[in-house]
Amino acid sequence: MGRRIDLNCDMGESFGTYTIGADADLMQHITSANIACGAHAGDPDVMDRTVRLAKKHGVAIGAHPGFPDLAGFGRRMIDFSPEEIYRTVVYQVGGLQAFCNVHQVKMQHVKPHGALYNLAARDRATADAIAQAVYNVDSSLIVYGLAGSELLTAGRERGLRVGSEVFADRTYQPDGSLTPRKESGALIEHVTTAIQQVEQMVKSGVAKAVDGTLIEIEADTVCVHGDGTHAVKFAKELRKALDAGGISVRAIGS
Amino acid sequence: MGRRIDLNCDMGESFGTYTIGADADLMQHITSANIACGAHAGDPDVMDRTVRLAKKHGVAIGAHPGFPDLAGFGRRMIDFSPEEIYRTVVYQVGGLQAFCNVHQVKMQHVKPHGALYNLAARDRATADAIAQAVYNVDSSLIVYGLAGSELLTAGRERGLRVGSEVFADRTYQPDGSLTPRKESGALIEHVTTAIQQVEQMVKSGVAKAVDGTLIEIEADTVCVHGDGTHAVKFAKELRKALDAGGISVRAIGS
Amino acid sequence: MGRRIDLNCDMGESFGTYTIGADADLMQHITSANIACGAHAGDPDVMDRTVRLAKKHGVAIGAHPGFPDLAGFGRRMIDFSPEEIYRTVVYQVGGLQAFCNVHQVKMQHVKPHGALYNLAARDRATADAIAQAVYNVDSSLIVYGLAGSELLTAGRERGLRVGSEVFADRTYQPDGSLTPRKESGALIEHVTTAIQQVEQMVKSGVAKAVDGTLIEIEADTVCVHGDGTHAVKFAKELRKALDAGGISVRAIGS
Amino acid sequence: MGRRIDLNCDMGESFGTYTIGADADLMQHITSANIACGAHAGDPDVMDRTVRLAKKHGVAIGAHPGFPDLAGFGRRMIDFSPEEIYRTVVYQVGGLQAFCNVHQVKMQHVKPHGALYNLAARDRATADAIAQAVYNVDSSLIVYGLAGSELLTAGRERGLRVGSEVFADRTYQPDGSLTPRKESGALIEHVTTAIQQVEQMVKSGVAKAVDGTLIEIEADTVCVHGDGTHAVKFAKELRKALDAGGISVRAIGS
Repeated sequence: MGRRIDLNCDMGESFGTYTIGADADLMQHITSANIACGAHAGDPDVMDRTVRLAKKHGVAIGAHPGFPDLAGFGRRMIDFSPEEIYRTVVYQVGGLQAFCNVHQVKMQHVKPHGALYNLAARDRATADAIAQAVYNVDSSLIVYGLAGSELLTAGRERGLRVGSEVFADRTYQPDGSLTPRKESGALIEHVTTAIQQVEQMVKSGVAKAVDGTLIEIEADTVCVHGDGTHAVKFAKELRKALDAGGISVRAIGS
Repeated sequence: MGRRIDLNCDMGESFGTYTIGADADLMQHITSANIACGAHAGDPDVMDRTVRLAKKHGVAIGAHPGFPDLAGFGRRMIDFSPEEIYRTVVYQVGGLQAFCNVHQVKMQHVKPHGALYNLAARDRATADAIAQAVYNVDSSLIVYGLAGSELLTAGRERGLRVGSEVFADRTYQPDGSLTPRKESGALIEHVTTAIQQVEQMVKSGVAKAVDGTLIEIEADTVCVHGDGTHAVKFAKELRKALDAGGISVRAIGS
Repeated sequence: MGRRIDLNCDMGESFGTYTIGADADLMQHITSANIACGAHAGDPDVMDRTVRLAKKHGVAIGAHPGFPDLAGFGRRMIDFSPEEIYRTVVYQVGGLQAFCNVHQVKMQHVKPHGALYNLAARDRATADAIAQAVYNVDSSLIVYGLAGSELLTAGRERGLRVGSEVFADRTYQPDGSLTPRKESGALIEHVTTAIQQVEQMVKSGVAKAVDGTLIEIEADTVCVHGDGTHAVKFAKELRKALDAGGISVRAIGS
Repeated sequence: MGRRIDLNCDMGESFGTYTIGADADLMQHITSANIACGAHAGDPDVMDRTVRLAKKHGVAIGAHPGFPDLAGFGRRMIDFSPEEIYRTVVYQVGGLQAFCNVHQVKMQHVKPHGALYNLAARDRATADAIAQAVYNVDSSLIVYGLAGSELLTAGRERGLRVGSEVFADRTYQPDGSLTPRKESGALIEHVTTAIQQVEQMVKSGVAKAVDGTLIEIEADTVCVHGDGTHAVKFAKELRKALDAGGISVRAIGS
C-alpha cells in the first residue's frame, strides 16, 4: 500500500453512430483509460479518437478486451475455451496497440471487460489465458484485475506488473469479494461514504466489510464509472478529495 | 528489375468452422503470405495458426486488410471515407502485428484485399489513406500493390518500400492495366504461357500486351492464387520453372 | 392529392446497450413507424418493444430494411447486386413480420433506409429488387419511397400500393428532386416555413422550388426525423398545425 | 410409435463465400430440412437457395435457429436470458418464413441448433422461451427436440405438435439420455448397427442402452448428419433400409 492511487475508467465504448459514456468530460479527472478494442464495443474510428483524447490529457492508455459480443456489450458469458480467450485478447490488444503506435504513445495496461473480467477473477484457466496473452504481446504491460483475483495471481506468476483494482461505490464481503449487485447493500449510494472507503483503502490498506470487520485490500487503482453526468461529478469530487488528502493521484505506470 | 522474384499468396481466409484455401499445401511453395486480419475473413484463431504456419516454412508475413464485410468476403465496394479506410487498416494491421509479436516474427508487408486493393490501385485518396496507415503503424513495412498503381506511388512518396505486384494468369492491356475479368482473353489458361509471362516480366521487365505490344512492367512479386488443388499445382510448377531459370525466388524483404 | 397525410418516422434504431432516437416521445405524434430490422440498426429485443410501442399508440408498422452495416448505420453505399438486395429485404421484412405476428398486428408498409433508400430512388434495378421482394413476401404491403422515385414506379408496376414521401424540412429543386444536403439552402430552418411547405403539398399538390417555381409533388406521407428533443417538438407542432388546418392525419393504409 | 419416420438434416449452413455441407446431395434422401436462419450460420442468399432446393425435392422445411454467433457456429453457450432467447427465435423464424412465403411453401417445423438445442433439452426456461416463440409466431408449426427433452414437454403444454428426435449413430444411457460425446462408446461406428438402432426405435419404440437394458424411446424423426461424403452415403443406406423394412419415410407434418 502506498499513498498514491490510480483512477481508471472504461472509455471508447461508443460504436459507429451510437454514443455511450462521457469520455471527453471524464478524461480530465482520471489517470488511466481502459479503451474498448472493437469487440464488445468500440470501432477503429472510436479507438483512434479515444487514444488521441487520452494522450491530450496525459492519461495512461490501456486495452480493454471483452467477449466479442457487441449486442450484449460483453456482459454475457460466452463459452470460450482458454485458447479462444487467449487469441481474442492478443487480437484486441494488437488492434489498440496500432493506434498507440500511430499516436506515438506507449500502452500502459490491459484490463478485461465485463463478463471476461468477472470470469478472470475467479477462473484460473481464463486468468492464465489473459495473462499469457498480455505477456506474449508485450511483457512490459500491466495487468489490471479485481483485488484478490486469479488474474492478479496469474499475472504475477508470469512476472507481469499488476494493478489491483478496488471499487469506490461497491461494498465488500468479509472474504474480500464484492457484494453481488443483486443483494441489498451492494452499492454505496453516498458520495462521501464512497470517497471515505477509497481513502481508507489507499491510506490503510483496509476496507470495512458489510459486517463491520476490517479486511485487507490492495488498492492500486480505483474503477470510476463512465456513464452519466453523475459519473463526471463523482470522479471530480473523488479526485478533489484525494488531492486534498495528500494522496498522489497518478497512473500506475507513471 | 532484378533476377529475383517474390511469390505471394492470400492466406488465413478461413473463419470459425468455415475453411477456405489450401494454406498448408501452398505455404511450401510461396515466399510471402498475405494474412487476413479478421475483417473480410480470418479470425484470431485462424490468424494465430497461419502466422505459426508461415513462420514454420520461413515465409514472410504480411497483413491483408480488407473492407470489414465477411458476408461479401471484402469483394464488395463499400463507401468508406479515406479516414475510415485509414483507421480500419491501422486496426487490422495491429491485430496481425500482435500475432507476429507472439510468434516473434517480424511483419514484412501489407497488401490490401479485394475491393480495397482495386480501389487503392486507381483512387489516390484511398491509396494515400492506406500508405499513411502503414507508415504510421510501422514505417519499415513494405506496401504491396498492383504494378503501376496509385498505391505504389502513395507508398513511395512517404518513403515506404513498395512491392510491385504482377499476375501470372492475367493478360495486360497496352496501357499496362489488367484486362478486366469480364472480357474474353482476360485469363491465361495455359500454365506454360503463364509461367513464360512471369519469366519475361522478371528477366526483361516487360510483358506482351493483348495487342502484341511490349509494355514495361515492374515485377517484384507475383500473386499466386490460393484456392483449389490446381492452385497448389500451379504454384509448384511456377516455382520449379523459376528455380530452373536461375531466378532467385525469395521474399522482397529478405 | 387528398386532404389527408401520414406522418412517418424511423424507429427502433437502438441496438443492445446503445440507445438512439426519442421513440417513446415521438410515437404519440406520428401515424406510421418505420422499424429497423436488425441490419443497419435494431435487434430482436428492440424490434419487439418497438412493435409493442407502436401497437399501443395505434401507429401503423412498417419494415425499414437497410444495408446490413451496423458500423455505418446503413448510410454507406455497399455494392450489392440486385439479387443480394432482394434477398436481404426479404429477410429483414420477414424478421419484423414475425414480431407483428407475435403482437397480432398487421404490417402496413416497407420503407428502405439510408443509402438503400437513396439508391432505390434513382436506380431502377434496386427499385425493382425491393419492390419485388415486398410483392413476393406480402403483396398487400405498401411501399414507401421518395416522391417521384424509381421505387414508386417499380412498386406501381407490380400493382403494389405506394406511399409518396415528402420532406418538411428540405427544399426542392425545379426538377422535383431534393436539394443535396451539401448545398446551401438545402434545409428549411424555420418550423413555420416547414409546416407551410407540408400544408401546401397536401392541400395543393405543389411545392415551391428553390428558384421560386411551383412543382407538382405527390404527398402521401411526410418524413418526421427521429432524434433529439427538437424532433419531438417539431412533430408535435406539425401535427397540431395539420389538425388545425383540417387535414386528416392518419396512416396511409388506415 | 408408428411404422413411419422422418429423416431430418441441418441445411443451409454455408455463409457468403464459405461452403459447408453436402446440401444438394443430401436433399434427395431426407424428408425434413432444418435451415439455418442467418444467426449461427446461413445468410439471405443461402436461405433463399436452400428453401428453393428443399421445395424442388419435396422436402419439408423447418427453421433452425441458434445462438447468433457465426464465429462459434452456434456451438458455444451464450448467457442469454429466456427473453433474449424468445426474441432471437422469433426473429430467426420470421426471416426464414419470409423465404417460405416467397417460394410459396409452408414452413413445417422449428428445431433449435447446437448449444441452444442442448440447453433447450435440459433447461425448462429455455424450452419455454423457444416453445412460446414458435407458438406466438405460428401455432401450427411443429417443434423438433431431443426425445425426452424439456423442449418437447414445453411444446406439448402449449398445444404445439412436437417431433421427438432420435439419433442413429449415438448410443443411449439407461435413463434415456445420449452418451456424452467425450465418453468412449458414445458413437456407433458401424452403419449396420446404426440402422438397426433406428429400425428398432421405429418398430418397437425401444432402444438398447449401453448397459444392455431396453429403454422406451419415442422416434418421430431421425437426425441425419450433414457434412462429408460419408454423410450422404449413410443417409442413402438408412433410407434404403427403412424403405425395405416397410417403414414409411416421410415428413412428420405430411
